[in-house]
Amino acid sequence: MTTWLPIPADSDFSIYNLPFGIIETPSGRMGAGVPIGDYVIDLVAAADAGLFGARRRHVQLFEQPTLNNFIALGNDFAKRIRRRLQQWLCESKLPKNSTDILYERSQVRVHLPIQVGDYTDFYSSLEHATNVGKMFRPDNPLLPNWRWLPIGYHGRASSIVLDGTPIRRPCGQILPKGSETPIFAATQQLDFELEIAFVIGKESRLGHPIPIEQAEEHIFGLLLFNDWSARDIQRWEYVPLGPFLGKNFASSISPWIVTLEALKPFRTRGPVQRPTPLEYLRLRGWHHYDIALEVSIRPKDGPETVVCRTNTRYLYWSMAQQLAHHTINGCNVRPGDLMASGTISGPTSDSFGSLLELAWGGQKPISLADGSTRTFLLDGDTVIMRAYAQRGHLRVGFGQVCGTILPAIKGD
Amino acid sequence: MTTWLPIPADSDFSIYNLPFGIIETPSGRMGAGVPIGDYVIDLVAAADAGLFGARRRHVQLFEQPTLNNFIALGNDFAKRIRRRLQQWLCESKLPKNSTDILYERSQVRVHLPIQVGDYTDFYSSLEHATNVGKMFRPDNPLLPNWRWLPIGYHGRASSIVLDGTPIRRPCGQILPKGSETPIFAATQQLDFELEIAFVIGKESRLGHPIPIEQAEEHIFGLLLFNDWSARDIQRWEYVPLGPFLGKNFASSISPWIVTLEALKPFRTRGPVQRPTPLEYLRLRGWHHYDIALEVSIRPKDGPETVVCRTNTRYLYWSMAQQLAHHTINGCNVRPGDLMASGTISGPTSDSFGSLLELAWGGQKPISLADGSTRTFLLDGDTVIMRAYAQRGHLRVGFGQVCGTILPAIKGD
Repeated sequence: MTTWLPIPADSDFSIYNLPFGIIETPSGRMGAGVPIGDYVIDLVAAADAGLFGARRRHVQLFEQPTLNNFIALGNDFAKRIRRRLQQWLCESKLPKNSTDILYERSQVRVHLPIQVGDYTDFYSSLEHATNVGKMFRPDNPLLPNWRWLPIGYHGRASSIVLDGTPIRRPCGQILPKGSETPIFAATQQLDFELEIAFVIGKESRLGHPIPIEQAEEHIFGLLLFNDWSARDIQRWEYVPLGPFLGKNFASSISPWIVTLEALKPFRTRGPVQRPTPLEYLRLRGWHHYDIALEVSIRPKDGPETVVCRTNTRYLYWSMAQQLAHHTINGCNVRPGDLMASGTISGPTSDSFGSLLELAWGGQKPISLADGSTRTFLLDGDTVIMRAYAQRGHLRVGFGQVCGTILPAIKGD
Repeated sequence: MTTWLPIPADSDFSIYNLPFGIIETPSGRMGAGVPIGDYVIDLVAAADAGLFGARRRHVQLFEQPTLNNFIALGNDFAKRIRRRLQQWLCESKLPKNSTDILYERSQVRVHLPIQVGDYTDFYSSLEHATNVGKMFRPDNPLLPNWRWLPIGYHGRASSIVLDGTPIRRPCGQILPKGSETPIFAATQQLDFELEIAFVIGKESRLGHPIPIEQAEEHIFGLLLFNDWSARDIQRWEYVPLGPFLGKNFASSISPWIVTLEALKPFRTRGPVQRPTPLEYLRLRGWHHYDIALEVSIRPKDGPETVVCRTNTRYLYWSMAQQLAHHTINGCNVRPGDLMASGTISGPTSDSFGSLLELAWGGQKPISLADGSTRTFLLDGDTVIMRAYAQRGHLRVGFGQVCGTILPAIKGD
């Protein structure tokens, strides 16, 4: 596809991508937007220019503070919008209305793309579960249920924040090594977790499982997700009901929802699953995705160091399996629900998706480009996650999700 | 207080109560309502009749499908509304506008009172934690962290349903006793959990803990809560990240939010806490409540049997402690968030708040009035929970939350 718009070759936002987000225009109007190269398409203005027909209906749909209403209309509708935008971008000459519809990306503010109803976090990387298991439960690293079901738990929706939001170092109860009495302190083991999350588009009815063959119809698209974690707080609280304050102080998401449609060319075979999953988790075909991921740390006033390179194809459980499992008991899903993969770790020690694993629980500090080392995050550190899929000239990227650590609030 | 309205002496909805809910009038209008005796006050009509001044503003506020906007205005505002209603109910003669404002309760449909943002479940009964611990972890019943912090975890908001909604028996993975291979089946261990939940009124800012002295200002009121549980599904899935499909198929709430203000006369001393909690969990004064609770089972076509009588005063951790803990890491709360107590069990075997405990993991079946026995719930069983606080003539009740078990959906 050839467009009249100049798009850098390495842009995450090629004409094959066209993800959706929420922008605030220079005049302060909130609405849906689609990044393309270094620009963003204002969907409200595009609708008002008649790009999608039925002018008023489309303006109303896009002039919203979140994408929830739009994505609830289903993937076929979003597909039509994307195709129409591609067509418009490929018109043989610069369309007259382009200046009304396009902004430079630096001119707009981005906002949270969705109002998240429920947020679920899975634990779908075999390598991550094994690594963490070795550290938290040396006798019993991979639990017997892990290869039978995509383990997951519910997380906090209220503290999901956008790329760029600073992250306050949390305080809480911590059990010092060798002690039986917890102390109250700022976490000394602040960590990131590199994850991919999917956004539910189509709702399901309470009491009615989503069959695995239909699972992908309920997925609108994907986001980058940083599940910030305080390991010392988590370790003391998590038995028997799971992580709570060690996680729910913040999770960061990238601003643009990359549609499953745009990621179709990057489908790939997943790992062999042994034992064979139960019937309701079986699905023919390829349902994993080949998306390259990386994490950088940038110390205050220092240069950035890539500390992890991995890929979503390492995930053991597919999104379709996660969603089929999540609803097999009749649990319902709603547009805007978010389901994250769990930390994505690969097989090699430079492909682990958390500092806990990269620095092996504090035992193997990692080195940064400025000469400093890290076992966990320091105040002033910025964590930057990036993701993209690429095959030849075809590039579909996520942009980034970053966050800078602020010092803990001082007690009275 | 003396009212012109006839109110049965044993009504949960005395003039001292005046809880809030959402009603649908015979004409199909949704809005806020307040039950009183066998009647309900239509707050939209009351606002329109000028009862609260600023007619249009109050009509707009109350003519909503949920109470979220109303409760976000804070407890002082709700207090003013309740006082005004008490005044109106105590006018020296029947007010002319009473027929426009009052409905018989049987004339209106009730709806979910709030849109729940995030739902958290605590685990705050020492007796329950000890009982369950003995069954799930015989070597290690009460874990070392339990007396230091109010253990909690995040639950599912989408599957919170109203009193009366039928509950479909969920299917899922279950590990048969002695086997290492799970099967897919309908749960054979369907259970209730008797809980009280509080509704957040005033929001808090991300990164800013709610000091325990201010915690109750953020609590709008309380509901009865049934945290339906599938024990066999839960047992297989819950390590290491906590309960998931064993819980998230449904939770039922009662329709009327009883304000903390109405429950003030029923404050009571909580249990002695040893060890002394850390500073951020310490609060002078009485912050527990004396609310009697009971659970009945009514088999299909059979009579009702009360299977549990207990009291919220047995809870170890107070709501103020729960909320201070929940936010100590900076996690924010929003109006409409729901936080449940966890199963409320008392010291005696007839005061346990779940069948798991009452029938001791299947070992001691309980007898019902129709001569049948139960270890877990059967299809067709209706579970009814009731709660009220009473001191002399002062009665403040919750009404009930009930649900009938439907058979599992047959597989293909």
